[in-house]
Amino acid sequence: MKLTIERTALLSSLNHVQSVVERRNTIPILSNILMIADGDTLGLTATDLDLAINEKVAADVQTPGAITAPAHLLYDIVRKLPEGSQVELDYQSSDGRLSVRAGRSQFALSCLPKDDFPIMETGELPHNFVLTAAELKRLIDKTRFAISTEETRFYLNGIYLHAVEADGIPVLRAVATDGHRLARVETPVPANAENMPGVIIPRKAVNEVRKLIDDTADDISISLSENKVCFSFDGTLLTSKLIDGNFPDYERVIPAGNDKILELDGKTFAQAVDRVSTVSTEKSRAIKLSLSEDTVTLSATGAESGSATEELAAHYTSDAMEIGFNSKYLLDITGQIEGENAHFVLADAQSPTIVKDGTDSGALYVLMPMRV
Amino acid sequence: MKLTIERTALLSSLNHVQSVVERRNTIPILSNILMIADGDTLGLTATDLDLAINEKVAADVQTPGAITAPAHLLYDIVRKLPEGSQVELDYQSSDGRLSVRAGRSQFALSCLPKDDFPIMETGELPHNFVLTAAELKRLIDKTRFAISTEETRFYLNGIYLHAVEADGIPVLRAVATDGHRLARVETPVPANAENMPGVIIPRKAVNEVRKLIDDTADDISISLSENKVCFSFDGTLLTSKLIDGNFPDYERVIPAGNDKILELDGKTFAQAVDRVSTVSTEKSRAIKLSLSEDTVTLSATGAESGSATEELAAHYTSDAMEIGFNSKYLLDITGQIEGENAHFVLADAQSPTIVKDGTDSGALYVLMPMRV
Repeated sequence: MKLTIERTALLSSLNHVQSVVERRNTIPILSNILMIADGDTLGLTATDLDLAINEKVAADVQTPGAITAPAHLLYDIVRKLPEGSQVELDYQSSDGRLSVRAGRSQFALSCLPKDDFPIMETGELPHNFVLTAAELKRLIDKTRFAISTEETRFYLNGIYLHAVEADGIPVLRAVATDGHRLARVETPVPANAENMPGVIIPRKAVNEVRKLIDDTADDISISLSENKVCFSFDGTLLTSKLIDGNFPDYERVIPAGNDKILELDGKTFAQAVDRVSTVSTEKSRAIKLSLSEDTVTLSATGAESGSATEELAAHYTSDAMEIGFNSKYLLDITGQIEGENAHFVLADAQSPTIVKDGTDSGALYVLMPMRV
Repeated sequence: MKLTIERTALLSSLNHVQSVVERRNTIPILSNILMIADGDTLGLTATDLDLAINEKVAADVQTPGAITAPAHLLYDIVRKLPEGSQVELDYQSSDGRLSVRAGRSQFALSCLPKDDFPIMETGELPHNFVLTAAELKRLIDKTRFAISTEETRFYLNGIYLHAVEADGIPVLRAVATDGHRLARVETPVPANAENMPGVIIPRKAVNEVRKLIDDTADDISISLSENKVCFSFDGTLLTSKLIDGNFPDYERVIPAGNDKILELDGKTFAQAVDRVSTVSTEKSRAIKLSLSEDTVTLSATGAESGSATEELAAHYTSDAMEIGFNSKYLLDITGQIEGENAHFVLADAQSPTIVKDGTDSGALYVLMPMRV
C-alpha cells in the first residue's frame, strides 16, 4: 500500500474514526484502524465490536493495499504534522511497518495484519429512510440526557426510536428514560419509516452520531433491521448493534389527569434554579417549588451551608401547592426548552409532572417529584 | 454588619481570595473567608495557614462589622447572580446567619465567628522593593516549571529568590530545580533589594501571585523578612510563609566547560520534539538528538508503537555527537524561549547541557541528559 494524502483531509477522517476506539483494549487489533487504499480513496475503519465507523477520503493512491495501525497514535502524529503537509503512507509487507512521512518527519509504526481486523456484518437492512441533520440533532439532543446509566437496566441504556400514530398522525418518536425522568420527542414520520420496528440505539452510537453530524448540513440516510442500524452521509458510514431488549411501555408513565398549569420563562427559571440549588450540598440537590397565584417561589436548604429562596413571576391560577424536584434533572430539561415558554402540567406533590416546550410541541418531558 | 456592593466588584475579589481556600479542610474555619466592613470598604481575607490573601473593595457600608462565611459557596452564589446586580450583605448576630440578597434572590449562609479566624502575623518585614508586574511574571514563568514536586526535598518546592553579583553587576535572581533540570533567571536588582536574604517562596504562593498579577499593569511591592514574604498591589495583599530550608549551591550544577554550540529555531525545534516523541510511549518520553554539521536529527522509539525521526537545519560546527533527553523537560524549556533562537551548549552525552535564550540573556537553563 502506498499513497499520498492531504494532512487536513486525513486528520478530519482520523478524528472521526479514532473516536470510536477505546483507550484500553484487551484485544490488540481493536486499538488499530483498518486502512484500505483503492482507486482514488483511502478508507478508514474503526470498531469496538458493537459499533463500527467507516470513512472514505480522497487520496492519491500509488499502490492499492490494506493494513491496520494504532488509531490514537496515528491520529496524534497527523495532528502534530505541520498544516498544509502532504502525508505519504507506505506499507511494504517486507519490513512489517507502516511508514508515515511528511516533510522531514518520518515514522515507522507497528502494524497488525488487515485480515485480523473484525468486520461488522450488517446483514440485510430492510428499512430505509432519510432525516435532515437538523431533525436528527433535535431528536438526539432533547432525549439523550435522560438515557439511563444503570447497566442492569440495559434496555434503558439508549434512545428508543419508533414509528407510532399520535392523535391520528404518524410520527417518528425518540424516547429515553432513567426512571426518574423521561423525554419524548417526535417528528413527522419520514417516507418509508412507517413500518420500521421499534429499536433501541445504544448510548455510544447516539453520542458518536451526534458528534459526526455536528457540522454537516447533509441529509442522513438511516437503514435498519431488528439488530443493526446504519447512519450514512458525506462519505461516512456508522453501523451499530441495537440493544436487544424491550423498551418499557413508556406511555403508562405519562400522566393524563394533571390539571394545574404553570407557565414561565424557561431561561429565567433555569437561572434561578441554578442559583438557589447552590446551597443544597446534598447529592440530590433537592429544590422546592411553592406555587401560588402567578408566583413560584424556589427554595433549597443545605444541612451545613444555609438556605436560599427566590421568587419568580409566572402564570399560575390553580390552587397553591408545593412540590420538590432534583434540581439537576430540572436543569437538564429546561436546558432543552427552545423558546421562552416552559409549561409545567402538575397534579400534586407525589405525582409525576409534565413539562412542555412552548415553542416545540413535539417535545414532552416527564419528571418524578422528590420529597423535600 | 450591613453593606451593599456591586456584584462585579465583589465577584472579582471573591475570585481572588477563594482561590487560596482548599476544597477540603480539617479545620472548618479555613473553609471560610473573613469579611470586615468598615468605612467605605469591604475587606476579604482567606488563608490556609501558610498563605493569606487580603483584598479591599469599595462598598456602601451601612453598619460596620465582621463575620466569616463559606468561601466557595459565597463565590458560587455571587457568580450566579445576574450581571449588574447590587448585592446586600447583612449579618445580625441574633440569627447567626449571613444574609445575601440581590433582586428577588435571598440566601442565609452558615457563619463562624470572626474571632476564630486565624490572622497571619507578618512580623517585621525589613526588606522592601518594587518590581514591575512584567518583571515578576518573567521571573516566575521562566522558572516555576522546574520546581520540584518531591515533598521529601521540601527545600526545592519553591523558587529561590536572592540578590547576587553576576559578572560584577548586582542582579535579582530566581532559581528553581528538581534535580533533573534547573532554571535560572535574573533581572537588574531593584533599589533596596541588594541586601535581601535569599528566600524560598513556596509553589502555592508562586502560583497564587502569578494568577493575581495576570491582568495588572501595576508595580508590585515586595516586602520580606527571613520567614515571610508579602506581595502588594491594587488593594490586594498576599502574605506567605517562606520555606525554612537551605537552597542547594546551584552554581555547582551549571557546567563551565561545555564547548559545543548548537543554535536553532526554538519553535520549530519544539514542534519537532513534540511530533517525534509521540511514539515514545514510555513514561520517560526519551528522545535522542544526533548532531552533525548544521543538522540535528531527532529520533525516538516506543517498544510497542514504532519509531520516528526528523531532521532539522541548525547551526552546528563541532564534532558529531548524540545525546538523549526527557522530551517533556525539553519542551518545558523551549516553551519559555522567547525569540527564534535557542542556544544549546553541550559537552558530551553524559554531562548536563546548558540552554540559553537568544533573546533573553538573563535566562539560563540546565538539563540533565538521559541514556537512550
